[in-house]
Amino acid sequence: MPDAPLPVARSVADLRAQVAAWKAAGETAAMVPTMGALHDGHLSLVRLARQHADRVVASVFVNPTQFGPNEDFDRYPRNEAGDAALLASAGCDLLYAPTVSEMYPQGFSTTVTVTGVSEPLDGAARPGHFAGVATVVSKLLLQCGADVAVFGEKDYQQLQVIRRLVRDLDIPVRIVGGPTGRAEDGLALSSRNAYLTDAERAAAPALPQALRAAAERLRAGARVADVEAEAIASLQAAGFGKVDYVEVRGAEDLARLGPDSATTPARILAAAFLGKTRLIDNMPV
Amino acid sequence: MPDAPLPVARSVADLRAQVAAWKAAGETAAMVPTMGALHDGHLSLVRLARQHADRVVASVFVNPTQFGPNEDFDRYPRNEAGDAALLASAGCDLLYAPTVSEMYPQGFSTTVTVTGVSEPLDGAARPGHFAGVATVVSKLLLQCGADVAVFGEKDYQQLQVIRRLVRDLDIPVRIVGGPTGRAEDGLALSSRNAYLTDAERAAAPALPQALRAAAERLRAGARVADVEAEAIASLQAAGFGKVDYVEVRGAEDLARLGPDSATTPARILAAAFLGKTRLIDNMPV
Repeated sequence: MPDAPLPVARSVADLRAQVAAWKAAGETAAMVPTMGALHDGHLSLVRLARQHADRVVASVFVNPTQFGPNEDFDRYPRNEAGDAALLASAGCDLLYAPTVSEMYPQGFSTTVTVTGVSEPLDGAARPGHFAGVATVVSKLLLQCGADVAVFGEKDYQQLQVIRRLVRDLDIPVRIVGGPTGRAEDGLALSSRNAYLTDAERAAAPALPQALRAAAERLRAGARVADVEAEAIASLQAAGFGKVDYVEVRGAEDLARLGPDSATTPARILAAAFLGKTRLIDNMPV
Repeated sequence: MPDAPLPVARSVADLRAQVAAWKAAGETAAMVPTMGALHDGHLSLVRLARQHADRVVASVFVNPTQFGPNEDFDRYPRNEAGDAALLASAGCDLLYAPTVSEMYPQGFSTTVTVTGVSEPLDGAARPGHFAGVATVVSKLLLQCGADVAVFGEKDYQQLQVIRRLVRDLDIPVRIVGGPTGRAEDGLALSSRNAYLTDAERAAAPALPQALRAAAERLRAGARVADVEAEAIASLQAAGFGKVDYVEVRGAEDLARLGPDSATTPARILAAAFLGKTRLIDNMPV
């Protein structure tokens, strides 16, 4: 028997009515914010959310304010019917799919910004990106009122920015990070992988391979600057074009590691172009 | 019999525990954020809050981030015991008085900014002021989780900034504005009136008198620019020093009024110094 169609809320009022009904029945709720074009990585976050709450809401909203003027907002993949079917199969209870005008009505004029953790890496490469993310995530969390929200470690800097703003603004929600889903050859699952040509897709696993090799070299005591330079060289040898960054940073605040930081938990993060497609990945060190 | 001492919460956890207990008992809660040094204007907001909810929390927090480097943060009046007694007499149920480190712990790095309504008037005269206000009010509202929050019309631009950010960030609270409390001679009640010398206090009612006269002239059809200039002249004649602004603006967005705006609800707002003390006031037109 096919799954029943997934209920869809298109307004804040409808979303809140459903969550309030669950809470009135004594149930907890988790939210999984996404931009749609869902893949197994997203579905693993939905399944993780189910472990933390009785009910799961997934949002699908391609947020215009987190795309730069020359980025891929217009061509970002959209497939609501396919997304809804995948969410239902993963045990999601509600799809929240607001319109742009529901999220940003006439006169909208508020921005949430996070200094520090949002400034290096993608914050430097994509000006305004994390202000767009911080603002829309604040709104989604406050619209939903979920007890828990799940975000993927694939967007590791985003996860740390969200942890910071939730703590700083006292948003009453618990943030849970979910591990990066990967293809069998190691490539991190991403909606943007759909942009890759066959040749680019074949070259793409060089990114996680470079990060894994770098993490091993660091654990063996190699110098950070050497390891970063080697990783960049290996990406370029594999056919990557512009490398926005390959950097080792503190795992929580994403600050540069000082000379005495050998025992600080660290993360290696990278962003690089393969053809016109910008791929990101990261790993613990 | 004297009133029982007012319970005081000093941490977010204690505040939330009390509000959660009320909600579990089916009671609603209202919040009245203040910077302390309470006067009858504040107490009228507490009484108004009681009309909107079963329980009332007043917060007292002198927020450092909304004071400029040359403003009066250090000498701003503080009198918690006196404030607590006044709040209890007005029917407040809980005083929330967090420390600066409870509000802004190590690593704090998030700011809420509002464009448009926060930019003219006090936004121009006090750079950074409304970002400080928007951030701390977002935090207080999310810490408390009240159903309703009451702010005075005395700080009229602040009230409009707060209405805007609550709507934009989808903070689940209803904002209620309370009318400005006034002394018998018309001076708006303000904690900063305590700074005035006797002579300054005697001159201060010229501010509401100038605004009332201006509103009457506008209703009689006088030109906005003429009325603003006359009000400034009358303040200077009464002994005021620097006049930061006397301006007629749209009542909601505080935009300049266009030539066809005779039917737009408007507000006249002023800020001017009497000696070292900066007074503000406003009235509907």
